[in-house]
Amino acid sequence: MSYQLVMIRHGESLWNKENLFTGWTDVDLSENGINEANQGSILLKDAGFHFDVCYTSYLKRAIHTANYVLQGLDEEWIPMIKTWKLNERHYGALQGLNKSETAAKYGEEQVKIWRRSFDVCPPLLDQNDSRNPALQPMYQSVPSSELPLAESLKDTVARVIPYYEQCIRKDIQSGKKVLIAAHGNSLRALVMYLDGLSAEQILDLNIPTGVPLVYELNDQLQAVNHRYLGDEQLVKAKMQAVKNQGSK
Amino acid sequence: MSYQLVMIRHGESLWNKENLFTGWTDVDLSENGINEANQGSILLKDAGFHFDVCYTSYLKRAIHTANYVLQGLDEEWIPMIKTWKLNERHYGALQGLNKSETAAKYGEEQVKIWRRSFDVCPPLLDQNDSRNPALQPMYQSVPSSELPLAESLKDTVARVIPYYEQCIRKDIQSGKKVLIAAHGNSLRALVMYLDGLSAEQILDLNIPTGVPLVYELNDQLQAVNHRYLGDEQLVKAKMQAVKNQGSK
Repeated sequence: MSYQLVMIRHGESLWNKENLFTGWTDVDLSENGINEANQGSILLKDAGFHFDVCYTSYLKRAIHTANYVLQGLDEEWIPMIKTWKLNERHYGALQGLNKSETAAKYGEEQVKIWRRSFDVCPPLLDQNDSRNPALQPMYQSVPSSELPLAESLKDTVARVIPYYEQCIRKDIQSGKKVLIAAHGNSLRALVMYLDGLSAEQILDLNIPTGVPLVYELNDQLQAVNHRYLGDEQLVKAKMQAVKNQGSK
Repeated sequence: MSYQLVMIRHGESLWNKENLFTGWTDVDLSENGINEANQGSILLKDAGFHFDVCYTSYLKRAIHTANYVLQGLDEEWIPMIKTWKLNERHYGALQGLNKSETAAKYGEEQVKIWRRSFDVCPPLLDQNDSRNPALQPMYQSVPSSELPLAESLKDTVARVIPYYEQCIRKDIQSGKKVLIAAHGNSLRALVMYLDGLSAEQILDLNIPTGVPLVYELNDQLQAVNHRYLGDEQLVKAKMQAVKNQGSK
């Protein structure tokens, strides 16, 4: 028996375009991001994929990506489970700042450290900051002690993996075809777990936007291989674009 | 303690425009139908409504209506539960025929009877007909014995009400603000139940499209009153339009 899991990272958002730290800020896809989702859907359709359940985050750029993908597959009727556990990494007090503002405020070197380290956390939000998730309607049903004021990538991994193990895994194991539409860092967490990558390896991995990533799992649900759908050169170019975005 | 329930009927679909019997055929909203959903969302927003959970059918014209409404309220992150139990009435062998084809095939009088009776069922689909839900991927998880080949309004009521009692009621009782985005006849079933209407009364009731219908319920979850949001004249005109559609 073998199992399958498909992930897709949302495409360009309105804040990606402006090069702002987004994190849990709930910004929508740009026109380009919508096109990326639709292209991902076409790749899945052409390869004959079907899904029984879709997981996504609380954030609309991921929810809309899921909607566009399922619309293209004519499978909008399947259950869509939304969870904050699949949200993007929380960027704390950096959320809403652009690269140059951040560099001016904290220094270029410090920004690089936050971006390129596994366990260093950006500056925490103040408890009274309106960006604190505990103050926002959408997180009212979550105990505030579970909600972050900022996260390192390690913190993101620490919330994504238990959710995968407790919820998503069961669906895969029961034979359901699972689609996960989420974010760069929540998907990195899953890839790190499935492929047993080190902190260093995962930081080097740039998941391209809007490209379906297909994992084949064995009967212990261990990853035996994975592949991106679509043109190899395009996938490489997209990975490079994501990498440049981080280092620019 | 009082409770609340909001319903919204999807707007014009591509087949409404062409005056075809739709039923469980999974056709999309027309541009006008999208506008109706967005208008409904604005009415809810202006009146300060918020929701904790949304129920809808398996059919994309209802799912998209729910999506547009929640998008306008900026509450797309709430759980959306899709169930075939809230589908439109199944129109059996009439699905896909237009008014004149149906009249030519079965006679005008007969068509009137099917449209305007509570317990008369339209001609059943053949088991091998591709329109049989049991043969369609989206209903594979439903025991085929539960799936209809055609329904009278009475049959529709008989599947909607147990679902309401077993699933939706619990959410309302737990204090959740519930939105239901569904169809003319599945919503008629709920209204019949909540307001204790007779078969004759429910047949006379035309639920306008895209207009939020707000029920206030007492602590036994009995309806104490209901109202449509928005301009009274517009609501009346929409009810008349729905009535004309049926009788034309």
